[in-house]
Amino acid sequence: MDKVLVIHGPNLDLLGKRQPEIYGKVTLEEINKKLKALAKGKNVVLEFMHSNHEGEIVEAIGKAKDKFQAIVINPAAYTHTSVAIRDAIDAVDLPAVEVHLSNIYAREEFRHTSLIAPVAKGQICGFGVNSYLLGLEAAIGLIEGK
Amino acid sequence: MDKVLVIHGPNLDLLGKRQPEIYGKVTLEEINKKLKALAKGKNVVLEFMHSNHEGEIVEAIGKAKDKFQAIVINPAAYTHTSVAIRDAIDAVDLPAVEVHLSNIYAREEFRHTSLIAPVAKGQICGFGVNSYLLGLEAAIGLIEGK
Amino acid sequence: MDKVLVIHGPNLDLLGKRQPEIYGKVTLEEINKKLKALAKGKNVVLEFMHSNHEGEIVEAIGKAKDKFQAIVINPAAYTHTSVAIRDAIDAVDLPAVEVHLSNIYAREEFRHTSLIAPVAKGQICGFGVNSYLLGLEAAIGLIEGK
Amino acid sequence: MDKVLVIHGPNLDLLGKRQPEIYGKVTLEEINKKLKALAKGKNVVLEFMHSNHEGEIVEAIGKAKDKFQAIVINPAAYTHTSVAIRDAIDAVDLPAVEVHLSNIYAREEFRHTSLIAPVAKGQICGFGVNSYLLGLEAAIGLIEGK
Amino acid sequence: MDKVLVIHGPNLDLLGKRQPEIYGKVTLEEINKKLKALAKGKNVVLEFMHSNHEGEIVEAIGKAKDKFQAIVINPAAYTHTSVAIRDAIDAVDLPAVEVHLSNIYAREEFRHTSLIAPVAKGQICGFGVNSYLLGLEAAIGLIEGK
Amino acid sequence: MDKVLVIHGPNLDLLGKRQPEIYGKVTLEEINKKLKALAKGKNVVLEFMHSNHEGEIVEAIGKAKDKFQAIVINPAAYTHTSVAIRDAIDAVDLPAVEVHLSNIYAREEFRHTSLIAPVAKGQICGFGVNSYLLGLEAAIGLIEGK
Amino acid sequence: MDKVLVIHGPNLDLLGKRQPEIYGKVTLEEINKKLKALAKGKNVVLEFMHSNHEGEIVEAIGKAKDKFQAIVINPAAYTHTSVAIRDAIDAVDLPAVEVHLSNIYAREEFRHTSLIAPVAKGQICGFGVNSYLLGLEAAIGLIEGK
Amino acid sequence: MDKVLVIHGPNLDLLGKRQPEIYGKVTLEEINKKLKALAKGKNVVLEFMHSNHEGEIVEAIGKAKDKFQAIVINPAAYTHTSVAIRDAIDAVDLPAVEVHLSNIYAREEFRHTSLIAPVAKGQICGFGVNSYLLGLEAAIGLIEGK
Amino acid sequence: MDKVLVIHGPNLDLLGKRQPEIYGKVTLEEINKKLKALAKGKNVVLEFMHSNHEGEIVEAIGKAKDKFQAIVINPAAYTHTSVAIRDAIDAVDLPAVEVHLSNIYAREEFRHTSLIAPVAKGQICGFGVNSYLLGLEAAIGLIEGK
Amino acid sequence: MDKVLVIHGPNLDLLGKRQPEIYGKVTLEEINKKLKALAKGKNVVLEFMHSNHEGEIVEAIGKAKDKFQAIVINPAAYTHTSVAIRDAIDAVDLPAVEVHLSNIYAREEFRHTSLIAPVAKGQICGFGVNSYLLGLEAAIGLIEGK
Amino acid sequence: MDKVLVIHGPNLDLLGKRQPEIYGKVTLEEINKKLKALAKGKNVVLEFMHSNHEGEIVEAIGKAKDKFQAIVINPAAYTHTSVAIRDAIDAVDLPAVEVHLSNIYAREEFRHTSLIAPVAKGQICGFGVNSYLLGLEAAIGLIEGK
Amino acid sequence: MDKVLVIHGPNLDLLGKRQPEIYGKVTLEEINKKLKALAKGKNVVLEFMHSNHEGEIVEAIGKAKDKFQAIVINPAAYTHTSVAIRDAIDAVDLPAVEVHLSNIYAREEFRHTSLIAPVAKGQICGFGVNSYLLGLEAAIGLIEGK
Repeated sequence: MDKVLVIHGPNLDLLGKRQPEIYGKVTLEEINKKLKALAKGKNVVLEFMHSNHEGEIVEAIGKAKDKFQAIVINPAAYTHTSVAIRDAIDAVDLPAVEVHLSNIYAREEFRHTSLIAPVAKGQICGFGVNSYLLGLEAAIGLIEGK
Repeated sequence: MDKVLVIHGPNLDLLGKRQPEIYGKVTLEEINKKLKALAKGKNVVLEFMHSNHEGEIVEAIGKAKDKFQAIVINPAAYTHTSVAIRDAIDAVDLPAVEVHLSNIYAREEFRHTSLIAPVAKGQICGFGVNSYLLGLEAAIGLIEGK
Repeated sequence: MDKVLVIHGPNLDLLGKRQPEIYGKVTLEEINKKLKALAKGKNVVLEFMHSNHEGEIVEAIGKAKDKFQAIVINPAAYTHTSVAIRDAIDAVDLPAVEVHLSNIYAREEFRHTSLIAPVAKGQICGFGVNSYLLGLEAAIGLIEGK
Repeated sequence: MDKVLVIHGPNLDLLGKRQPEIYGKVTLEEINKKLKALAKGKNVVLEFMHSNHEGEIVEAIGKAKDKFQAIVINPAAYTHTSVAIRDAIDAVDLPAVEVHLSNIYAREEFRHTSLIAPVAKGQICGFGVNSYLLGLEAAIGLIEGK
Repeated sequence: MDKVLVIHGPNLDLLGKRQPEIYGKVTLEEINKKLKALAKGKNVVLEFMHSNHEGEIVEAIGKAKDKFQAIVINPAAYTHTSVAIRDAIDAVDLPAVEVHLSNIYAREEFRHTSLIAPVAKGQICGFGVNSYLLGLEAAIGLIEGK
Repeated sequence: MDKVLVIHGPNLDLLGKRQPEIYGKVTLEEINKKLKALAKGKNVVLEFMHSNHEGEIVEAIGKAKDKFQAIVINPAAYTHTSVAIRDAIDAVDLPAVEVHLSNIYAREEFRHTSLIAPVAKGQICGFGVNSYLLGLEAAIGLIEGK
Repeated sequence: MDKVLVIHGPNLDLLGKRQPEIYGKVTLEEINKKLKALAKGKNVVLEFMHSNHEGEIVEAIGKAKDKFQAIVINPAAYTHTSVAIRDAIDAVDLPAVEVHLSNIYAREEFRHTSLIAPVAKGQICGFGVNSYLLGLEAAIGLIEGK
Repeated sequence: MDKVLVIHGPNLDLLGKRQPEIYGKVTLEEINKKLKALAKGKNVVLEFMHSNHEGEIVEAIGKAKDKFQAIVINPAAYTHTSVAIRDAIDAVDLPAVEVHLSNIYAREEFRHTSLIAPVAKGQICGFGVNSYLLGLEAAIGLIEGK
Repeated sequence: MDKVLVIHGPNLDLLGKRQPEIYGKVTLEEINKKLKALAKGKNVVLEFMHSNHEGEIVEAIGKAKDKFQAIVINPAAYTHTSVAIRDAIDAVDLPAVEVHLSNIYAREEFRHTSLIAPVAKGQICGFGVNSYLLGLEAAIGLIEGK
Repeated sequence: MDKVLVIHGPNLDLLGKRQPEIYGKVTLEEINKKLKALAKGKNVVLEFMHSNHEGEIVEAIGKAKDKFQAIVINPAAYTHTSVAIRDAIDAVDLPAVEVHLSNIYAREEFRHTSLIAPVAKGQICGFGVNSYLLGLEAAIGLIEGK
Repeated sequence: MDKVLVIHGPNLDLLGKRQPEIYGKVTLEEINKKLKALAKGKNVVLEFMHSNHEGEIVEAIGKAKDKFQAIVINPAAYTHTSVAIRDAIDAVDLPAVEVHLSNIYAREEFRHTSLIAPVAKGQICGFGVNSYLLGLEAAIGLIEGK
Repeated sequence: MDKVLVIHGPNLDLLGKRQPEIYGKVTLEEINKKLKALAKGKNVVLEFMHSNHEGEIVEAIGKAKDKFQAIVINPAAYTHTSVAIRDAIDAVDLPAVEVHLSNIYAREEFRHTSLIAPVAKGQICGFGVNSYLLGLEAAIGLIEGK
């Protein structure tokens, strides 16, 4: 069965606990649960990892090669600052889907540039939890060569 | 039944006829067919329009208010040059989903900036025909308030 | 009797119908009516044209030479993107007055630059409908050599 | 009766005395006279001040609150360099109309940016003396809530 | 016999009628006549199109594939603003020669950048009507593989 | 006893009278009173000056050398535009502490650059009246060589 | 009793051991001691953390909500590169005071921009150890609503 | 006899009193004395003015027309910030020579741009007091049409 | 008989010997031969010069005035770096045609700016050897006042 | 015996395992082996550390002072984003040699700027494994004061 | 007797022969003659060199050390492009005076930046031949330590 | 036996004679001697050339193809300004190693960009004479395919 690695970047553990007026009341656990449900229906296995550490995300990607067929990643703040994560994705040669809860192009100027986007297969942003679900569908599509 | 307007921007009528090595062999008609199939399953009605004219796209959006619940738009070249389309989307007050066949962030520098993105609800790019299908799902999600 | 061409750019047909909280409830028809009333008092004849098409505005300006003594133009979104309208105004050699309902210098950065302004005689912005009325007065002043 | 403060910025005392080929032969006194005539017809009282000193203009604006209903200001050279005048207008909470004799967008690049415009209600430029007269009309319109 | 499509961009219909002191007294009809004469001597057939509409030019290029062996295009104002025309030329896979009557590098800064040039085979500018004639010769050379 | 010069820049005389919702209801007089109280406890004498005139502030600094041991300055709008005040501080060779009521880095982009900061000893911003009090403490610390 | 979290960013453990000619001979331990003494006098409890890891600082901030009333942070090198720390501060909704030992505006150009400043309440820099002490006072002031 | 106005900009009254290691020990009075001696030998009369106020310098230039044949000006800090002084020089139509004691091109980046230089006849910088003396010679040369 | 100077800039002596896959197998000698043949048919005499030295090209242009009626120049690398060659062309007052073998606008960014173009009559690029032949035709057209 | 610390930055553990067509088949272990062999011949002892964590590299440098005479560092992705590593090198006062396997100036624009280079003694890039070996030689040369 | 080297940069040999309406009718020989006359009166010996070759100017400066006490240089076009001449002046450790006939700050933007100025002692521009004479005086003043 | 061309750019003939405090007392001759000694041990023959002329360096590279297997070049000032040398290296298709005595990234901003680096195989800077020696080793490594 195909396996997809889902990576949650820095501060995403605070989801649903802080600023509910902005990010809604959904927690990271609930996002993972929704993703699992979708994956089950698609006959795909998911593994989750969350880290506030750039280096841990780099390592997770570096080791993903043999175990996963695709990556869904919300790099959060590291989207705009991490060449290391970009290089890891570029090196690992797995299709990666970049997702964002919010529409990063409707926020501060520095959030309009993603260092990850040029090495990802594609990007989905602005649809809240749905960004993750659509991202997983996109990843499965990439695995199936659709 | 909910209705979604699907807008194809300039040069998209050439899809499948030119540069198949880049854009694949899928034609615009086939994309529309796939979208219709998906819509049917979701109990949504679609209307399509393609135009090479900025002004026609502006008008289509301006008139969409009373007839549609959401817009899926691939602004193509106008993504990077049309303030008029941006203003139309902003004025019409319907949720709009911006889609792109290719990963615009992996192409020429001037394609990295979208004038449309800040007024769209979200953006999906890089997944070929799948960008449209995921875009329609996102639009339906927005209508349903998910 | 002197004749003035009044040009309304893209999306201005939506005035009064969309976003009344921003642009007020005045429609394009009502603006034209107010302009006509003012023109009548000044013994000037007006002709109106609205278009969402850059090319139609270019053509209207190109043909204005023999029929009009001045132009009042609200280029709307094309203010910031149309070299073609700029060239048309430059070529037609009629005094042109650029008007804007809103204060474009208090909005997004990309609205701070007008491609039209350097070839117009002058610019009036920020006074709502009054921008048009003052613009017509300015145009009449230019015709009368004041 | 409503009162409007008319502020003339640096070097405007030289009007009509220097470079008549550029600025015409109208002096500052004659501009003020024309403005008074217009004001009289509109049942409005004017007060004039001219200064080459940024600080004096800041002070005039700071004290305008209780005495005036609106400001018409030609900030001249300070348009492009004075954050202090901008802050004064912002603080005083009176509608301000920015006017310029020449079309600042058809001159040197550094004159294309106005620090005042974002805090003024609107801007009128390029119509010579008429910029002031239209500016006064605009100010009266703002007072009357038109 | 080889066929070349000659495209005249916005405002070029005003040639010879406006600003003769700048652009000379040659009209678009006379340019076309000179081009025809040259083409006849080279055993090539020409077809002309002029449009002020970006979308019409995009369409003309999109349909040129089966009928023409090369394109000579003076994109005029759209040189600097149209990604859509650029994409059309890129997609149609016909050799395109970009021509300009004036030396665009000796004019305003914004005219120094051509969005069309990177996808055209080459560019000729600054020689008035001769730019078109040399452009046609260049196009014929490209067809003949010279 | 050590003496500190406290300089209030342009528009600060409006404090507490205008925009109380932003700057609070504290007046400049009250700020001075709080500063005096603090100074008394620290056995330091204060002198205050407020001016809307760049030149007056330049002069006050130029003459401060023999009379004061340190300067606390809120350059307000001149923070971003006055090379003259910068040069004065640089020339006078007294430790200067730059203070701001608001957090200038959370406001408009042009307020993010201070011409004064590189020649001041340090900067304190964002704490309202407390910025002044902390600034005075900092100045006393500098005098005492702490 | 109110509690304040004091965060020391990367390389600050080297204080007093390296480059004493620049940073003086005070060690991090001594800074903490001085802070504790001040806190005691103000009836406030402090907790310290130092880390060279961006992720650890992000986590410390993320967990601070329930335990602390304010944060004093010297982000050191991460001031200029960490969107993750910025987002953490923004999310945690505690008043944060940014402090720097040196005057960052008198150093290399890249140190003039702080990613943290726009989400902190205020910034204090340039006063050596005193920056911390003033920062703690500022934090206490913010807690007390002064 | 020809008359030349010598203008000393802000902070120049501190010359010889502050930072003698940089600017030497020559005072403004001594510079004036040297200039007078040179003028006497050249049969020219000098008038001096020093001001820290931008507005006073603007006014001095505005009134110079009828009384002087040339201006020698060291705009000091206003070199880089005053459009008002630039406009005054431009308006007054007297040959102006810009002088600087130090080599402004070997100092901070922001001192490399002079707003005055484009409207002055020429610029002399870097030679200490000699910049003034050479500037006076240059001014006399301009008067004599050399 | 009219005479035209043909100037080949740096590295062009390597043509046909290096990188034939890019520049083809045509040598500089063969280009000159083709040009001579064309010139003969047009009753024009050519003189050729090639140099890798900026100074030699400057001198050749400086001395061209009395001997030639026009210049055809491929400045190669000096296109982007030589103000000296630009000044020479500007000074010599002969019509100059700038040619390039490759399409400089489809290469590295720094090749998109020509210091020569603004002082040349026109520019031809992208047509290989044909750029020279068309350039010679353009030069002859300029001589003949066409 | 002199000791040199060799630091390998993020993703370098993937060497030889991923993208062999780009980086060759040499693994990090083999690089270390070659370095050891070279060191042995030079009578120098090496210690290696690899980390994907910015903070760990910062710490390794911070502790290097007493144990090593020089550092050879390939900061990889952190070259372009880590002020923290730069500050650590600056603080530790050991000669550091920056090495890169690839020629960073022939890659993406953002790789052309190294935050580390200004505080390193020198930089070696583009020679594959040889960059490390030359880097070690350079480090030994610096220790020996050559 | 003191010796000064006078260097004329590229194209200056054309002075008085080309564009007399701009540069006047004075030839380089006449400038040299005037300089000699001035030098004689000051008891200084001059040597002249003119070159269109950057390398020759570099060499002349490199060899100037033992023979001259100062340099007067008009780098002409190389002002804006030659790091080599800048480095030569920096290395040779002789006081250099940069002169320009025209006011380079009133010409094209690219002429506003001098690579030479930061390493010259000072700059004189805009006074035609007089720039050279004043430059020689400045050089003599530098030799004499005035 | 393999042959390497060593090129010394402008002003390097002054080494050891000027500014010994910066560049040390080693002369160009001594550098060459050290290089020869190293080459001898590696069984490689060297040829040296020094020139202050961009054109001569271009020519030396252009002719190097048949005679040399690699190039070691210190382009000195031309590093930052010569597209011609860049094009020569690109055309000649020999591995080139760029070396610099000083760390160009720790000097003026304009020295941080090398036009040569993207076409060289690699770059070595900051190690004084050792940069040359390491550069020769690198070149030999490239020849040997290491």
